[in-house]
Amino acid sequence: MAYFTTVLAHFFGILALILLLVWILHFRGEIDLDNNEASHIFNVHPFLMYFGFVFFAGEAIMAYKTFNVEHKVQKFAHMSLHVIAIVLGIVGIYAAFKYHHKQGITNMYSLHSWLGLATFILYGLQWLFGFVNFWIRGTYDSTRRSYLPLHMTFGRILLFMAICTAETGLIQVSAMLGLQIGTESRLVNFTGLAILLFGIAVELSVSYALAIRL
Amino acid sequence: MAYFTTVLAHFFGILALILLLVWILHFRGEIDLDNNEASHIFNVHPFLMYFGFVFFAGEAIMAYKTFNVEHKVQKFAHMSLHVIAIVLGIVGIYAAFKYHHKQGITNMYSLHSWLGLATFILYGLQWLFGFVNFWIRGTYDSTRRSYLPLHMTFGRILLFMAICTAETGLIQVSAMLGLQIGTESRLVNFTGLAILLFGIAVELSVSYALAIRL
Repeated sequence: MAYFTTVLAHFFGILALILLLVWILHFRGEIDLDNNEASHIFNVHPFLMYFGFVFFAGEAIMAYKTFNVEHKVQKFAHMSLHVIAIVLGIVGIYAAFKYHHKQGITNMYSLHSWLGLATFILYGLQWLFGFVNFWIRGTYDSTRRSYLPLHMTFGRILLFMAICTAETGLIQVSAMLGLQIGTESRLVNFTGLAILLFGIAVELSVSYALAIRL
Repeated sequence: MAYFTTVLAHFFGILALILLLVWILHFRGEIDLDNNEASHIFNVHPFLMYFGFVFFAGEAIMAYKTFNVEHKVQKFAHMSLHVIAIVLGIVGIYAAFKYHHKQGITNMYSLHSWLGLATFILYGLQWLFGFVNFWIRGTYDSTRRSYLPLHMTFGRILLFMAICTAETGLIQVSAMLGLQIGTESRLVNFTGLAILLFGIAVELSVSYALAIRL
């Protein structure tokens, strides 16, 4: 079951990326942070928040247990894929602020922005605590042992929050663009479903991998 | 920890209810399914989908392990609180359709409606399978034993989906009403945060209760 759910997670992860790219490139123009067209700057945000942040974070979570390599390499992949997620996430968040600035839109007023910032800050802290405890081993063995279940629990909560934030972002864009009936509206919805199923499959893949270990 | 997270869950559950009621009654008028004013019919939807569906479903999930009564009573509470959630959820969904009909708005075009209907149908099936297997014991012991972990996993996924749907609903209403800076916007956002924290606390409370049992 761990193998099956991991394959499912990769499948929905790639599917969501394809749907997202078709949506942006076909209906919304270019993905370009240095464009004169504000909407092209904005396009960087959904692209990097999903493909940069959510997707790499999900892969990082799964890497720790399900990558078919020795455990040290799994651990390195887990740590460094999260770094990629953080770096690309920062660029993605910057794109939203740059777009707001260019268009004179207020920052941080929506529930999406609140959830997103909370998720991202907690995610950064989670990475830092993980790095200090498990990578450079800067704490006592006993601290490390009692921190491990907390690290796993927070990781699952952060995945949940990241997916929630992605769904609220898609629906906010849909509502702002006034999408109702039509291909674009359905495409955005299917992208949202694929992202949700990616999150669920990652969660299941990790639960099953842990259950096997117990 | 199971006790602490259960108390937290009740706290955030009630807090979300209070914030939701303040928002609707202070800013959006009455909650009335038989009103001439379409927006008052609509108000039934967020009220019942949270207080009827999400809140009772969360309480039902926790009842099975954390209510301080004998297990038969816990099991009865688990089953019947889910019935209350389903019944109130149906009324809440009906309110959205009635509002759409009155206003001439298309049904089922948004990601919120897709997530919501998917969650509700799967929730109904989950209840039905649970009832047949565990309440009227209409299946073999071996079927029941192998179904139990699936039932628990699906329950957690459905809780996750229900919270996601609630967040998308709040953000959709915010965007439709054009809420940006101001008290109402912040109130809706805090309601969203409280609902998210309710979901997280329910999930944690159940994980800890299960961990104790293992």
